[in-house]
Amino acid sequence: MNAGIIGATGYTGAELVRLLSGHPKIEKLTLSSVSYEGQKLEDIYPNFFELVSNQLLHAEDVIVASDVVFSALPHAVGEQYAAACSKRGIHYIDLSADFRFDDDEAAYSAWYGKEYQFPELHEISIYGLPELNRSRIKELAANGSVIIGNPGCYPTGGSLGAFPALAKGLADSGVIIIDAASGVSGGGREPSRAFHYSECADSAAPYKVASHRHSPEIARNLAAMAAVGGNPAPQVIFTPHLVPMNRGILSTIYIPLTEEWRVSRENVLMPPSKEIEEKTDEIRKLYVDFYKDEPFVRVLPAGLTAATNRVRQSNFCDISVHVDLNGSTLIVTTAIDNMVKGAAGQAIQNMNILFGFDERLGLEAIPVIF
Amino acid sequence: MNAGIIGATGYTGAELVRLLSGHPKIEKLTLSSVSYEGQKLEDIYPNFFELVSNQLLHAEDVIVASDVVFSALPHAVGEQYAAACSKRGIHYIDLSADFRFDDDEAAYSAWYGKEYQFPELHEISIYGLPELNRSRIKELAANGSVIIGNPGCYPTGGSLGAFPALAKGLADSGVIIIDAASGVSGGGREPSRAFHYSECADSAAPYKVASHRHSPEIARNLAAMAAVGGNPAPQVIFTPHLVPMNRGILSTIYIPLTEEWRVSRENVLMPPSKEIEEKTDEIRKLYVDFYKDEPFVRVLPAGLTAATNRVRQSNFCDISVHVDLNGSTLIVTTAIDNMVKGAAGQAIQNMNILFGFDERLGLEAIPVIF
Amino acid sequence: MNAGIIGATGYTGAELVRLLSGHPKIEKLTLSSVSYEGQKLEDIYPNFFELVSNQLLHAEDVIVASDVVFSALPHAVGEQYAAACSKRGIHYIDLSADFRFDDDEAAYSAWYGKEYQFPELHEISIYGLPELNRSRIKELAANGSVIIGNPGCYPTGGSLGAFPALAKGLADSGVIIIDAASGVSGGGREPSRAFHYSECADSAAPYKVASHRHSPEIARNLAAMAAVGGNPAPQVIFTPHLVPMNRGILSTIYIPLTEEWRVSRENVLMPPSKEIEEKTDEIRKLYVDFYKDEPFVRVLPAGLTAATNRVRQSNFCDISVHVDLNGSTLIVTTAIDNMVKGAAGQAIQNMNILFGFDERLGLEAIPVIF
Amino acid sequence: MNAGIIGATGYTGAELVRLLSGHPKIEKLTLSSVSYEGQKLEDIYPNFFELVSNQLLHAEDVIVASDVVFSALPHAVGEQYAAACSKRGIHYIDLSADFRFDDDEAAYSAWYGKEYQFPELHEISIYGLPELNRSRIKELAANGSVIIGNPGCYPTGGSLGAFPALAKGLADSGVIIIDAASGVSGGGREPSRAFHYSECADSAAPYKVASHRHSPEIARNLAAMAAVGGNPAPQVIFTPHLVPMNRGILSTIYIPLTEEWRVSRENVLMPPSKEIEEKTDEIRKLYVDFYKDEPFVRVLPAGLTAATNRVRQSNFCDISVHVDLNGSTLIVTTAIDNMVKGAAGQAIQNMNILFGFDERLGLEAIPVIF
Repeated sequence: MNAGIIGATGYTGAELVRLLSGHPKIEKLTLSSVSYEGQKLEDIYPNFFELVSNQLLHAEDVIVASDVVFSALPHAVGEQYAAACSKRGIHYIDLSADFRFDDDEAAYSAWYGKEYQFPELHEISIYGLPELNRSRIKELAANGSVIIGNPGCYPTGGSLGAFPALAKGLADSGVIIIDAASGVSGGGREPSRAFHYSECADSAAPYKVASHRHSPEIARNLAAMAAVGGNPAPQVIFTPHLVPMNRGILSTIYIPLTEEWRVSRENVLMPPSKEIEEKTDEIRKLYVDFYKDEPFVRVLPAGLTAATNRVRQSNFCDISVHVDLNGSTLIVTTAIDNMVKGAAGQAIQNMNILFGFDERLGLEAIPVIF
Repeated sequence: MNAGIIGATGYTGAELVRLLSGHPKIEKLTLSSVSYEGQKLEDIYPNFFELVSNQLLHAEDVIVASDVVFSALPHAVGEQYAAACSKRGIHYIDLSADFRFDDDEAAYSAWYGKEYQFPELHEISIYGLPELNRSRIKELAANGSVIIGNPGCYPTGGSLGAFPALAKGLADSGVIIIDAASGVSGGGREPSRAFHYSECADSAAPYKVASHRHSPEIARNLAAMAAVGGNPAPQVIFTPHLVPMNRGILSTIYIPLTEEWRVSRENVLMPPSKEIEEKTDEIRKLYVDFYKDEPFVRVLPAGLTAATNRVRQSNFCDISVHVDLNGSTLIVTTAIDNMVKGAAGQAIQNMNILFGFDERLGLEAIPVIF
Repeated sequence: MNAGIIGATGYTGAELVRLLSGHPKIEKLTLSSVSYEGQKLEDIYPNFFELVSNQLLHAEDVIVASDVVFSALPHAVGEQYAAACSKRGIHYIDLSADFRFDDDEAAYSAWYGKEYQFPELHEISIYGLPELNRSRIKELAANGSVIIGNPGCYPTGGSLGAFPALAKGLADSGVIIIDAASGVSGGGREPSRAFHYSECADSAAPYKVASHRHSPEIARNLAAMAAVGGNPAPQVIFTPHLVPMNRGILSTIYIPLTEEWRVSRENVLMPPSKEIEEKTDEIRKLYVDFYKDEPFVRVLPAGLTAATNRVRQSNFCDISVHVDLNGSTLIVTTAIDNMVKGAAGQAIQNMNILFGFDERLGLEAIPVIF
Repeated sequence: MNAGIIGATGYTGAELVRLLSGHPKIEKLTLSSVSYEGQKLEDIYPNFFELVSNQLLHAEDVIVASDVVFSALPHAVGEQYAAACSKRGIHYIDLSADFRFDDDEAAYSAWYGKEYQFPELHEISIYGLPELNRSRIKELAANGSVIIGNPGCYPTGGSLGAFPALAKGLADSGVIIIDAASGVSGGGREPSRAFHYSECADSAAPYKVASHRHSPEIARNLAAMAAVGGNPAPQVIFTPHLVPMNRGILSTIYIPLTEEWRVSRENVLMPPSKEIEEKTDEIRKLYVDFYKDEPFVRVLPAGLTAATNRVRQSNFCDISVHVDLNGSTLIVTTAIDNMVKGAAGQAIQNMNILFGFDERLGLEAIPVIF
């Protein structure tokens, strides 16, 4: 089977090349780049030296040569390639935001500054979060070529932590807060002051507070997840931070519990009580059970919290659950690798689903702690 | 004037030495250490080579030689020195938690595993957060020697961000969440797996979720701050994280707004509206006004968020204010240097207040971005 | 085929587990640990959670269950296991220094503080640097079980850069200097002040200057490499440095050129001349040719220098060659991943050679730049 | 006294502002910037918020308002300002390379691509390495305004380590090698791929091997230092590396010893002998004595090596001396802060010399280990 990557020279594209090169079902990779057409990937990334030596072509050449196409282009420039793939009858997996808002063009336009060029494509595409939409992805694939809107990195890490609580009705009507921190690779390959080593190393800072465009994607996911259990959509606050590490997204999620899931405490200034520990165990079991068939979600045992260096370079999403000292709030922490489960790995997981492969294919790497 | 430091060889002690060495009112420093008695500070910290060459003595020798004593000992081992200083009639500034809970011995005992040895001292001591207790510190100093319970690092960064909102009645009865990230120096000088370079570099993780002992200190501070404006104590959730940087604490604080401070929005999936920006400006002005006479609090203008590398090695607390997309929640971010405003610098600020000096003395260093 | 790892819980052992888990010829891994016997690897390294769940056993149990045994024990404690494997007739790959000095017990004893316990084993063992000893390893394997003394990390990176120059007679009789920098994982898993995050992050420093025990191993390698071309053994200086990164060894190697390889320059204060560039190209070609059949050595084209993030998590050794401005000295830079080509990866490469597998098996991972 | 800074918005300029703000003799700072004229420094560097609020002016306005002018411009664009200061009769301290090559315009032109615009200025300027040229700087200042060519960062760290050996005749006629590593701030404030966080974090690499323009400056310094003792100029090799830290330059310097300073060893594969330790002590004493009156050079005692985190944010140059195992080579390691002793601090030291102040004024900060 041949795979193509449009926009192979950004970080996400290069990560797709790295991972797909080890995928047992992929025989040939065809790559394109606007900026570096005619060069080789190894000219741009010396880590690929002697390993990936095919020339960077036109996007059109990639589409013609492939049985599945990944697009790692910036937002709002690649819809035409989805149309071309659709016409050719091959699956198109888009890692930009262009197909993440199929049911809400208004939100997409407002945040990404562009209207749909091919509205009809957005009726046959699907948001590619396997844990939420696996069966629908399979259904669509059974009927022909599919367009996948591969999720954003923050929305993946944030949504997976809230899913069981929402679907199972643990969350009351309060606001869910997702406070997340990303490694610097999330900012992409283009040099800028914000990601200049001397400006961001050895420092932590929030950015785009109350204004990051992953906010509507997260809110939409949480609504869909609540709907799975027939529960109402929650309100959501999302705050991203930049921390000095290469990869990873750590999300700390605050979910107000319904009355029946709360623990009543006399003195919230005291250390955690036995009741809190027991309630935590109960919720953890619910999470374990909820995700028991998911190949890439690991609900951690008591005593562990999520950490980005335990999922590094893997497709795992690690989750730990906690109940706050005041007994009213579920705190869930999740860790993913922003480049893998948050981008290229999840795209490959989607490919595996589309083609009926074992979802783990090409994604078996054990996380590297350092 | 002579200053003494008990426990000078931990990170906090060494930072006190570094800062007090440049304080214009301090003529002589006397230092003690249990572990390294008889050696010199420069033997333990080669950065002090040829600069700080006095021998490390007994704590008792430090007390006798000093006009003010700083204690940088671990928790629960130094109360006796406070008693000795009190007897000698000199001020004692304790950087441990031992004098932070004067009105709640039960909470102190439950979290720190020790009862008060000298209960009477806790009636004449005071929590040394100048922005909250400056006038009381001055009053006490006017009457004799004072024991300062110097605040914890997280409680400093977290509380200062919430103070204006609480005192001015912006916060409704919901839960206030403080999600904070610390540099690794907060873990102290003793080697351990958690702070071993290979285990924590290039990674982010929460720790002690719903179980960190700064929780009751923060809750107590927020209650006191609300009381300043005659408002009820809020509930508080505090979650610490470890991020791979040397210094700094970044706090992101979520404060549910009262009905009158909220912004009503039709569609919370849309980008920030003009109403949100205006409300943010209004709250920012309130913050600027609230802190206008504080020498070490900087409320940042629109467009800036707090960042730890903008307060590095300074005693500043930077604050930025934001209103969430859903219009219901105030998001405040604060940055401090955990070793300075979060420990040694604040202790020196307290000393300056106790002695009637300009609060800025010895703390004028401009922050170093890298 | 079943593989066993004695001492599986140190960093090197865990890296062996990670890499061997993906090796297509290995069916089962059996692991031992003295410190954590009875526990599971995932209890110690949460990155292995749900992935490596077999219990940690006695070393003896590992030997009995395996067709090949890797030892990742500290130096000077594991010779008995080599003896046991030899008796069972299975290959033993030792990642400590115990079998690196077979022809010089005096040097071994002086640097590692222990005499050989089983001198006869040192007559049938071999230093496992494939680029130097591949054919001898194969010969030995043809005759029975083999003990491999897997090279040290610094000796691997330093020696491979000098090999072509020494074998081909480019080096004159002067001193060869190897100035190298290692990531912190080289210091192992045990917490200590030197590797405490706050003490080594954001800083660079040499250590064990003129006294590191990789010095005699490097000197011995360079002598053997010179002997390949019938050239005399050079003198060697080796200086290690610690730099704040997780993995990688960067070596900068200064080799005085013989008269015939030098470039004569009138003014050494001027920028590089055409003659220097041409001589550099000539030497680079010689290096490319020398290593043309090596699967894990990449001689970089003009314009590139070695960088540790271009070999990260791979078994590659990248090499760049340069001629100094004064025309008298060859400067070679090499980069390896200290945990892979510098330890676990090279051990697996040795296993592949011993069993006649393609040397690349289990080591195909493309380097990860971040 | 009023000081001016031309080019205040680069990293070096901002560091001058930070340090001069605390200088007890400076009353007013006047700043210029081409790129940000009319803005304030705090608009560009939020760490200066509320601390440095004067407007950025034209270079000409700075010169008129100042008693001494620092130029932190790029190379080859500021000679005219030196001329203007000279005309006004005020000292001009140039942190670019423009006045570092007064006796070798050919080398300057070849490396920096520009000929001298005002050749006569180069007859009255001086290379501002105080340890080498202090008395000449004072002599010049006694006769009128002076132009200081403030040394490059690498030349400072590299040259100071070799000076005693050269002046005292320890070095034989072989090649001196300076292998150095710099923090990323050395690359300046402009974003570029090389200094993009994701490309350089967690990695080490050499750059501009055998082609860095600090090479001729170092060679010239070493020649001058040898001449102090009537010794011939050595040959020099200089190799810079980039390591992932914010500040600091670590230099490891290899100096072949003359016959009389060598230690003869029977077996160079053995650990360091007593003779080597004694010779090292002897040379260390010579270094201590050589630098005994220098306020900013610290020769470290046995057992310590230079480390960049022991001089961080200080004007110190730390030096350790070692004799190699083969007894033939002196290994000197030095550490400086590239932004302080390697740039702004040394410039202020030069200002203090020019005005007859205590050299330590404004530079008393104790190094910060983290």
